[in-house]
Amino acid sequence: MLSEIQNRRSIRKYKNKDVEKEKILQIIDSARLSPSGSNTQPWNFIVITSETMKEKITYADHSQSWMMTAPVFIVCVADIRCRIDSNVTIWLDENSPEPELKQIIRDTSIAIEHMCLQAEHLGLSTCWTAWFNQKDLRPILGIPEDKYVCCVLTLGYNDELPKQRPRRPLNELIRYEKW
Amino acid sequence: MLSEIQNRRSIRKYKNKDVEKEKILQIIDSARLSPSGSNTQPWNFIVITSETMKEKITYADHSQSWMMTAPVFIVCVADIRCRIDSNVTIWLDENSPEPELKQIIRDTSIAIEHMCLQAEHLGLSTCWTAWFNQKDLRPILGIPEDKYVCCVLTLGYNDELPKQRPRRPLNELIRYEKW
Repeated sequence: MLSEIQNRRSIRKYKNKDVEKEKILQIIDSARLSPSGSNTQPWNFIVITSETMKEKITYADHSQSWMMTAPVFIVCVADIRCRIDSNVTIWLDENSPEPELKQIIRDTSIAIEHMCLQAEHLGLSTCWTAWFNQKDLRPILGIPEDKYVCCVLTLGYNDELPKQRPRRPLNELIRYEKW
Repeated sequence: MLSEIQNRRSIRKYKNKDVEKEKILQIIDSARLSPSGSNTQPWNFIVITSETMKEKITYADHSQSWMMTAPVFIVCVADIRCRIDSNVTIWLDENSPEPELKQIIRDTSIAIEHMCLQAEHLGLSTCWTAWFNQKDLRPILGIPEDKYVCCVLTLGYNDELPKQRPRRPLNELIRYEKW
């Protein structure tokens, strides 16, 4: 098994230690190499290190206070404009029915998980968080209403070593030839 | 850069060579280790090797004839029942507005990309395909209408070495502190 897949954990306690800028760029570069439908590359990333911004984002993200231990947040934003013309007025939120929204969530999620595994590769840790509403989070960052925030990824050096959480057994996940 | 991320390509031409069953299981095991919201693990996988089934699936997947060169398809199915009680009647398709559908697409996409990278790790190749409609594909496999097929992943030994497709430059993807 790829050791980054085996060893990755969602980390909710980080050391008080900055992340090297070069490593942040390498991590985002791993997202850049992701596959996406028709190579549309809907992903955009906002790197947050300001304490004030982290506080506001954490508040919108259900006040998960552990988040503030992370030196870096990466706000991961999917842009539907790679699929829908910018002349078409559109607002997106958790209840939007647009098929293209499902596609950009899929593709941006792929890119985000590349970042999680690349971070692990560099000795760093991450946690996906998404306990926010679009309408609360977007204004904090000035994100337009036609964009969709898939995740606020926390990033830093881990200060805990949690055990692997339980998983459904393999034979329960797999079927052959039909449902 | 993690070499599996660097070297992965979407492969659309495969060698006429079966994939070892043990490797298929290792690949699906890598999906099993994925993170998911509240550890809900919505993913399910149908392994297809029957030529008849592959033909039917390919037909539903926009008749992309290259798909038939792949010895294995893995049909990746997200199950909303980890988030919505089974007493609630629900049908899902590309136009469904349910927020939980967005969450299970996100989480299943993470798991699928783990499989792509683990396949690369084992010397195998993959391609995400999703040029189908739920209503066409699900009946072929007997998948209930409350499940959502995220992807038909092709899997096999590659018989082409495509160059990396162009990507948006890093500085276009990254913002700092705000949109």
